[in-house]
Amino acid sequence: MKHKSFEDMNCSLAQSLEVIGERWTLLIIRDASFGIRRFDDFQKSLGIARNVLTLRLNRLVDEAILEKVQGDSGRYEYLLTSKGWDLQPVLLSMTHWGDKYKPHPSGKRLTFVDRVNGKPIQRMAVRAADGRLLKPKEIRAKRGPALK
Amino acid sequence: MKHKSFEDMNCSLAQSLEVIGERWTLLIIRDASFGIRRFDDFQKSLGIARNVLTLRLNRLVDEAILEKVQGDSGRYEYLLTSKGWDLQPVLLSMTHWGDKYKPHPSGKRLTFVDRVNGKPIQRMAVRAADGRLLKPKEIRAKRGPALK
Repeated sequence: MKHKSFEDMNCSLAQSLEVIGERWTLLIIRDASFGIRRFDDFQKSLGIARNVLTLRLNRLVDEAILEKVQGDSGRYEYLLTSKGWDLQPVLLSMTHWGDKYKPHPSGKRLTFVDRVNGKPIQRMAVRAADGRLLKPKEIRAKRGPALK
Repeated sequence: MKHKSFEDMNCSLAQSLEVIGERWTLLIIRDASFGIRRFDDFQKSLGIARNVLTLRLNRLVDEAILEKVQGDSGRYEYLLTSKGWDLQPVLLSMTHWGDKYKPHPSGKRLTFVDRVNGKPIQRMAVRAADGRLLKPKEIRAKRGPALK
């Protein structure tokens, strides 16, 4: 299915969605962040069709979100780059929203904790420069040179 | 096109993606957060096909992310609920990633600022309970009852 591209939209959100908004892409990045590296392991974890997985991985390599390297065993591995790791706030914001609004009846799924002291990380939230939590209506959008 | 659903995946990220991961959905929520309320205004803003917009809006109403109300003029309006506003960290995390990795050559697009003092909000980031910034490898996932 050919989609209208978001590439020409002068909006950083649309630009991100153009790269990471395809089905499966954020689940592949999630798996990579949990240490999955090989094609077959992504495939087993996700139950995704092999041709779709190939397309998604190639796109992520083209976008420098994953780096494709030859592992010690000689097989290819896919590793998150720093650009890929920079998506962690996106993954965690969505995870926290899912925790709240699509909870599992038996309780928590994953809790992300600080390795230093084992305490849960803060809930992803919008904060002022001085650290105050900001509610949605306490912020406004200011146009920069790209939108003038 | 019929997709494999993420609904049965026991993962809060997959659960969120099942609701907000369809094409256009986050752009509709973005527009709603900027004050767009009416079908025709969403349609003009996005350049989306009317049948797709209808599907997406209905889904968002079913999920209680948007509320459909009769406006003063008698026309229907779509308003974000608190569940919808709770997606703001998702929108801003993606926006900040796009600002960094898909910048506009003329400079900034939108800067989100605190209404109180006009200062830019903090970049969306992962923080420890005591407020320290945490790098991706400084956190780990701990399984809860739903995954045991």
